[in-house]
Order: sequence, then structure tokens, then C-alpha cells
Amino acid sequence: MSPAEPRGAPGTRFQAEIREQPAALRRLLAHDAEIARIAATVRERDLRLVRMVGHGSSDNAASFGVYAFGLMPRWTALRDSITLTVHYRTPLDMSGSTVVGLSQSGQTPDVLEYVRRARAAGAFTIALTNDPASELATAAEATIPLSAEPELAVAATKTYVNTLGALALLAAHLAGRGAEVADGIRGASELMEEAIPELERTTSGLARSFSYTGRMFVIGRGVEFATAREIALKLLETCRIAAEPLTATDLAHGPVAALDPLFPVWAIASSDNTLQTVKEAAARARRMGATVVASGTAAERVKGAAFTVPVPTPRPALLSPLLSVVPGQLFCAALSQARGLDSDAPHGLAKVTLAR
Amino acid sequence: MSPAEPRGAPGTRFQAEIREQPAALRRLLAHDAEIARIAATVRERDLRLVRMVGHGSSDNAASFGVYAFGLMPRWTALRDSITLTVHYRTPLDMSGSTVVGLSQSGQTPDVLEYVRRARAAGAFTIALTNDPASELATAAEATIPLSAEPELAVAATKTYVNTLGALALLAAHLAGRGAEVADGIRGASELMEEAIPELERTTSGLARSFSYTGRMFVIGRGVEFATAREIALKLLETCRIAAEPLTATDLAHGPVAALDPLFPVWAIASSDNTLQTVKEAAARARRMGATVVASGTAAERVKGAAFTVPVPTPRPALLSPLLSVVPGQLFCAALSQARGLDSDAPHGLAKVTLAR
Repeated sequence: MSPAEPRGAPGTRFQAEIREQPAALRRLLAHDAEIARIAATVRERDLRLVRMVGHGSSDNAASFGVYAFGLMPRWTALRDSITLTVHYRTPLDMSGSTVVGLSQSGQTPDVLEYVRRARAAGAFTIALTNDPASELATAAEATIPLSAEPELAVAATKTYVNTLGALALLAAHLAGRGAEVADGIRGASELMEEAIPELERTTSGLARSFSYTGRMFVIGRGVEFATAREIALKLLETCRIAAEPLTATDLAHGPVAALDPLFPVWAIASSDNTLQTVKEAAARARRMGATVVASGTAAERVKGAAFTVPVPTPRPALLSPLLSVVPGQLFCAALSQARGLDSDAPHGLAKVTLAR
Repeated sequence: MSPAEPRGAPGTRFQAEIREQPAALRRLLAHDAEIARIAATVRERDLRLVRMVGHGSSDNAASFGVYAFGLMPRWTALRDSITLTVHYRTPLDMSGSTVVGLSQSGQTPDVLEYVRRARAAGAFTIALTNDPASELATAAEATIPLSAEPELAVAATKTYVNTLGALALLAAHLAGRGAEVADGIRGASELMEEAIPELERTTSGLARSFSYTGRMFVIGRGVEFATAREIALKLLETCRIAAEPLTATDLAHGPVAALDPLFPVWAIASSDNTLQTVKEAAARARRMGATVVASGTAAERVKGAAFTVPVPTPRPALLSPLLSVVPGQLFCAALSQARGLDSDAPHGLAKVTLAR
């Protein structure tokens, strides 16, 4: 399907692209050797501070990058301030830094400008984009193509999941774990393929219970904070729900006070050392009368959840976000349809965002 | 007033503490020489990566720290992942890092644990707390006392503003600009004192127009992203509004699609190189039919705003967040009262949050 092709019924593209994600992840794996070479350059030059920049879903994926680089090579990665470099034109010392510029289109103006300035300031720059012929790819020294094929729905799905996969592979190669993580991504794509039909049925039933919801929190912690951010963004974009992502712990530091029975909480619970914090946050939300939906690999361990949408556990477990975002995406597809909204082309949005 | 003292009418403490902020800022300045000594240690040891950790208002203040350290000594500062160190127990190399642990109470469990581990991993650790006898202060090598005096309302106000001031002073001393910024903070406290009576009148009128608001975005960029985060948190805590903070640019990357005439946007517009992005974001919100409230030092330059709440401009301009948060605080005080909520003690919250 090309952008010029006539669109089908509302939401058709969005739903089709969610279903394409397992195949998109396998296409990414064709670039494993290129990613290994880029990682070798980074290791040779010993560029151990990883600065990631992006907006929207790309920035959400960068939240996962913090953990991929932290857990595998044990390097510090940050979602860097674009404003400091691009708007305030602060000359930071970027020697010793690896920069990853994230943009599906490769056209995001301030990400492009950041990458140009960072390169001039001594950073090694990598473009992570679905368009390897884009300006961003040209501006950076190295490019990792997402190979998600054209994404036509405005709300990102397969480019988000492939961005997670690409960050995981890059981090894995930096730690000498490339083969293990490539296998893990292949395994995750198969688990996703098997899980999607059942998840479509579950989330479609679930959507009926949330027809009139106007506000939601989405909570996660650690590797799953990226998932919380991405599901909240899909809810905003496709369902017009004021959905805010919070870490499980930040919920307790104020926002919990806003909860009530008409303000549900979507909790992403995965089997790692953060599970206890997510379970406690869900219990706190329940005490305020909020309805709790639990998803993730450990969804069934969240007590008092009105609905659970578990997903299978990939190996290594740090790849869980590849799977745990899918129930949220499918829930949005079903709910936007139930509300008569077009998730392919939400009002007020364009596919390529040129806002500075 | 001590915690044991009987409480007055709902919201009395919250309002009193907003009014105390100018005096609290002046008390902070008494620690200028201590802060200068801490900065000298950091410079001597050349610890140029600043890792900040905190939750809630402390974490919001850390968003300002990214710019204070970036704009003055031109160092990279990040809101570090607590989870990576505390929950996943990842041994990161922290030699070369300055750690700033931010906690009003000095008791936040995972901030305390992070600081202990970071110190063991080679970081120079600084506690920034309102209780210099707290566990956090004991765990860190150096302490900057906030000297805000006891804060009794659950929602932070004067400790937030003093945290901004302390981060600005520390960054300024690292850049040899301590005297200039100390003078600036004194000046800002005077401007705040003069502005509060008029701001109370304006925001009290404004609150009447938002009696039934359930959802809001608060946008800012650069130094004012901290302000956007802090105002959104106050709206959640004290007014039970689902308020999400967004950078001006991130609004365009999806969330704008959720806006409508019942979903207003509070925009913080200050006179710096980000102003254009905030003006464009406000225009985008207006096109979706949203009511726009503009505050900040350049509030009057936002076209199409239904309400403007300008604040005076301090020198240097990077101190603007000290003033621009005040209209949001006062708006929350007035709106929570209009809604019959007790901003001193929101349902479901305690002053000291011990959630992990």
C-alpha cells in the first residue's frame, strides 16, 4: 500500500500495521551485521556516553534505550535536551559521546539540527530512521535503517517496535551479546505473531468497558516505562483520552490524588525487579477507587485488577517491551473504532511532524 | 506553625507557603558560601557529568537543573534512572560524576538508596534537602540545606522554588558566576513579593472560568519545562485535573489530537530562544478549539490566548522559572478552594512519600 493508494475504512491501516510488527522485526534483523559494525566503531573509539534525541514515539523508544545501554554494556544513556543545543546553542563538549538521532521520517527539524551540531562538537552520530535516504541519515556518520517498510497510519506502531529492536541490538553488540539478542528478537517476533489473534479478541472486549473514559494514567517502571509512555501517546492520539504516563513510584508522589472510579489506570507489570513497585502502585490506585487494567508479562500477578491482558515472556526478559506494547496498541485500535474515530488519520496530525 | 498545630480552613497552609516563597529564597542565600565550597570541590575533582535523582516536585526541579548546569558551566546534567541502579542493581561507572540527590524530606527511600550506591560507585554525592539532619544528608558527602523552613501543606511550593534556587547557585558557582546569580535570586525574590498580590487577584478570577475542567495540558520548553511539569503536578494533586506536562514541540507529535474546547492548555512563554516554539504550540492548540492561558515573562506575546498572566523578568533570564511557577500555584490554590477541595491535605497523599 503506498501513500497515494485510496484509504480503506477508518483504522484499517493502523490495525494492519500492528499486525505487521512481527514481520517488521524480522526485516530489522537483516541489518544485524551493519549494527555490529557500528557498535565496533563505537567501542574502538570508546564513546561511552550515549545521547539519544527524538520526539513522540521515537522519544518513548529512547526511554527503553536508557535501559538497553545501561543493562547490557553498562553505559550511561540519556534522552538529551534538544533545546540546549539547538535553541540555546550551548556548546557542550561532545567528544566521548555517541549520539543516536531517532526519527521515523528522518525529517524532524530539531533532531536533524541537533545531530548536525553534535557531530560538529565531536560526537559520533548515528541516525536511526525508517528512511535511509533522509536528511537525517545524510547528516549522521552512520545509519541504522528500521526497515519497517512504509508506515501509513499517522500513529506509529511498527516503527516504534523496530526502534526498540534496533536500540536493543546496538546495545547488545556493544556488550558482546549480539547473537543472543538477535535470537531473542526473532523469538519475540514469533511470540507476538502467535499472541496477536487472542490479544485482538481480549482488547476488543475490553474496549467496550472504556467507551466513555476521558482520563487515564499508564504506569510502568524500568524497561516498561517506555511502554507506558507509548501506550499513553496512542491513547491521546487515537482515542482522545487524556492519558499520562507515570513511573509506578511517581504515581505516589502526587498524581494518585486525582484518581477516582472514572479515572482508570493501565499498569504494565513485567517479571523483573520493578514488579513489586508496579504491584504497590496498582494497589494504591485501587484504594482510590480506580479501575485497574494489568498488562505485561506478569499481568496476572497484579492483585485487584479488573482486567488482565498478559503477554508471553521473551528471552532475554529485557525484550519484554517488544511484546507488552501490543495490548495497548490493539486496545487503541478497538476503542478508537468504537468511538467512531479514525486511528489512521487523527484530526490535527500529519504523518511527518515538522514542528520545531 | 508546627505539624502538631491545629490546621486552619482548607488550603490555608498551601496559600501561606506560596506567599512565604520570597522569604524562603532569601534564607537560601545564607548558604551561598557553603554552596561555593561544594562547587569548588566538584571543580577540583573535575566531575563534569551531573546525575540528578528525585521524585515529584524534586524531579521537576531537576528538569531545570539540566539547563542550569548546561547553560552556566556548560556541563551535561541528566535526570538519572533510579531504577537502573536501585532495582536492577547495574554497576555503572560513576567516577567522574557528581550526584545530586533531591528530597524535601530527605527520606525518599529509592533516592537514598541511589545516593548510597552512587557514592560506593565513585560519585561525589550532594544531598539537596529541607532536612539537613535527614538520612539522605547523612548518606551524602555534602549537603545543601534548602532552608525553606517546615513545609506543612502536602503539595510542595517553597521547597520547589528553593530547590530551583539551590541548583542555580550550584551551577553558577561552577561557572564562576556565583555573585551574579545570588544577586539575581535576591532580585527575583523581590519581584515575586511585589507581584504576588496582583497575581492572587488575577488567578482568583481565572479560576472561576475553569471550575469544571477535567483535563489540561501544560506546555513549556527549555528552562520552563520544569515549570510546566510542576504546574501540571499541582493541578493533579490539588485540583484533581488530569494535567499533563509537554514540551511545546512534543504537543505537535501526537497529543494535540486530543484537544477540544473542553481541554484547555496552559502555556508558559518566557523571553528566550524557545519563545517561538511555545507561540506555535499555542496557535496549534487554538486551531483545535482549545482555550489557551498564557503565563510567563512573555505571556503577552502569545497570540489568541483567552487569558494572560504575565510575571516580571528576573536577571539573568534563566531564573525566570522562579517567578513563572507562581501563577500556576496561585491558580491551584484558588481553583481547589472553588471546588471544595483541601489543597493542604489532598485525599490519598501524605507529606513524606515512602513509596519505592
